Amino acid sequence: MQTSLLQDIQQTLLPKIESALKASFEGHDFSNSPTLKQMLAYHMGWVVDEGNNQHGKRIRPLLTLLCAGAMDAPIEDALPGAVAIEFLHNFTLIHDDIEDQSPIRHGRPTLWTKWGIAHAINAGDALFTIAQMAVLDLVKTTDAVIANQATKKLNQVCLHLTQGQHLDIAFETETKVELQAYLTMISGKTAALVALSTVMGGLVARQSQNRLALLTEYGKNLGLAFQIQDDYLGIWGDTETLGKSTSGDIQSRKKTLPILYGLENCPQFQEAWQKEDRSSQQITQLANFLSDCGAQAHTLAQVNYYTKQAFDALEQVLNVKNKYAQALFELTETLLHRNF
Amino acid sequence: MQTSLLQDIQQTLLPKIESALKASFEGHDFSNSPTLKQMLAYHMGWVVDEGNNQHGKRIRPLLTLLCAGAMDAPIEDALPGAVAIEFLHNFTLIHDDIEDQSPIRHGRPTLWTKWGIAHAINAGDALFTIAQMAVLDLVKTTDAVIANQATKKLNQVCLHLTQGQHLDIAFETETKVELQAYLTMISGKTAALVALSTVMGGLVARQSQNRLALLTEYGKNLGLAFQIQDDYLGIWGDTETLGKSTSGDIQSRKKTLPILYGLENCPQFQEAWQKEDRSSQQITQLANFLSDCGAQAHTLAQVNYYTKQAFDALEQVLNVKNKYAQALFELTETLLHRNF
Repeated sequence: MQTSLLQDIQQTLLPKIESALKASFEGHDFSNSPTLKQMLAYHMGWVVDEGNNQHGKRIRPLLTLLCAGAMDAPIEDALPGAVAIEFLHNFTLIHDDIEDQSPIRHGRPTLWTKWGIAHAINAGDALFTIAQMAVLDLVKTTDAVIANQATKKLNQVCLHLTQGQHLDIAFETETKVELQAYLTMISGKTAALVALSTVMGGLVARQSQNRLALLTEYGKNLGLAFQIQDDYLGIWGDTETLGKSTSGDIQSRKKTLPILYGLENCPQFQEAWQKEDRSSQQITQLANFLSDCGAQAHTLAQVNYYTKQAFDALEQVLNVKNKYAQALFELTETLLHRNF
Repeated sequence: MQTSLLQDIQQTLLPKIESALKASFEGHDFSNSPTLKQMLAYHMGWVVDEGNNQHGKRIRPLLTLLCAGAMDAPIEDALPGAVAIEFLHNFTLIHDDIEDQSPIRHGRPTLWTKWGIAHAINAGDALFTIAQMAVLDLVKTTDAVIANQATKKLNQVCLHLTQGQHLDIAFETETKVELQAYLTMISGKTAALVALSTVMGGLVARQSQNRLALLTEYGKNLGLAFQIQDDYLGIWGDTETLGKSTSGDIQSRKKTLPILYGLENCPQFQEAWQKEDRSSQQITQLANFLSDCGAQAHTLAQVNYYTKQAFDALEQVLNVKNKYAQALFELTETLLHRNF
């Protein structure tokens, strides 16, 4: 079976990312606290546990390496930045899982369900620190100025992440959430880290401010499009393709974009939403209300809008198309056209 | 009334520290999440709340400025490092309070009791990030290489902090804790951050590796001596001077150094400790067992040992004695001879 350019490149880069993550992690001395090390290795998906060592897809570090490569920087130079972003992402997952009281991630018990909240908060802090040290390692592959800029950028994004997360926690208990506030929330919670992933590649490749801004724009819009697409699939996604039940977000009362649109613009939906009933019949009814009042069309339009913005920025910044640039386009298309 | 040199210098430096903390904090845009900003300002002691806006003594940033000044660096150059350490310390307090389920700090409800665990974890993460950005600001007062070294050092200490905290959480549920393991724990949880405070001043003052090692040694031993002295006072402290009840650590079953010594070396104490009884009569009995078996003498000897180590390192590193060096000696004496 023929493989695509992206698949070929992924086959080379993903093992590089995994090795660099492990090397960075193993560089720290945990002889005083082996159980802390075990917690982090477990969370990263490196412990074969109950026959299962699943982890995330490492999309963010892949984006960093592709962006660096697309701008003719050696892939190896960007590895510390890529590694830092993956650790950072995983730190946020450890804390988010406590904050959302999520028992399962990647088919395994979350860190806090396995070791308790106190240990999990602390383990998250340790992983956050490991991310900070990883990005500082850019001094070895670039120089102190770039390492500093990258570390500063990473922390600006961290603050943005906590602001997004703050809004997400606050929304849980708010009866009315404006669509605009929702976009602010996902800009922080989701898009900021994707934008960090793309701009990190540009920083390592010593790009101009103008081109760094375009890379940020690309990543931000990619993140927003991806998140809103996820919101779309959470109601109208194909169960078989997606592996989770259609209308799952209606069942779990998640305040996603189409649902907030419905609450703002569709009195019938609003009324039915308030009720306790989440029978499959009622869920279908609620999904239909959303389609009828334009929530589905609005959500799709939003996905298309941010997708276009992402591709526009990417096309502007990637005037030279080497193999990494091509793979980057392919990856973006794969991410943004999953089930449409 | 005549004031000491230390008091004079504190009167100049503490307002500088407070202004720099506030300026650094206000430099971040929280327009999207004003409540998050409010939580952090509350924790820092900047919100007049229920007639009370107490905060910590800012000893750590004071140590940084005094160490920098003692080595002839301009105080202003060290401010970003000092500010970073105070934010870092406060981040650890936010998370520690959740992990220890402490309801009160500085006479006020802790962040998690006021806003819930989810918000408090996230607010701690935000403050951690703010600390990281503060230390990177050393690039403005020094250069990229020093800023990079200081940021790296800060994160090495952070990892050490989480390792100490991990052990502290683990000890809660362990029946037997070795004295050596206890020292490892407080080395991470308490002493590492004091050592960061002192070495930070030396980094800004561009000191040699040898002198940085001495500053670290000074801070580490100061931290250990201070913590073990605190353990001593937790059993034999004078209630009136200290403002907390004598033998408080026996009542709260805290595993401090004298108690671990007693559990290891005094069968009578061990037997009585296991019992539920914590009447004032029983507490006095337990304290007497500790004194009789040598726990009090051992604890005092440990305080004296680390105090001597601290002063030895300080004397070696401060061959020139300017006013900041003198104040540093005075502060160290004040910290280590509180009630002896």
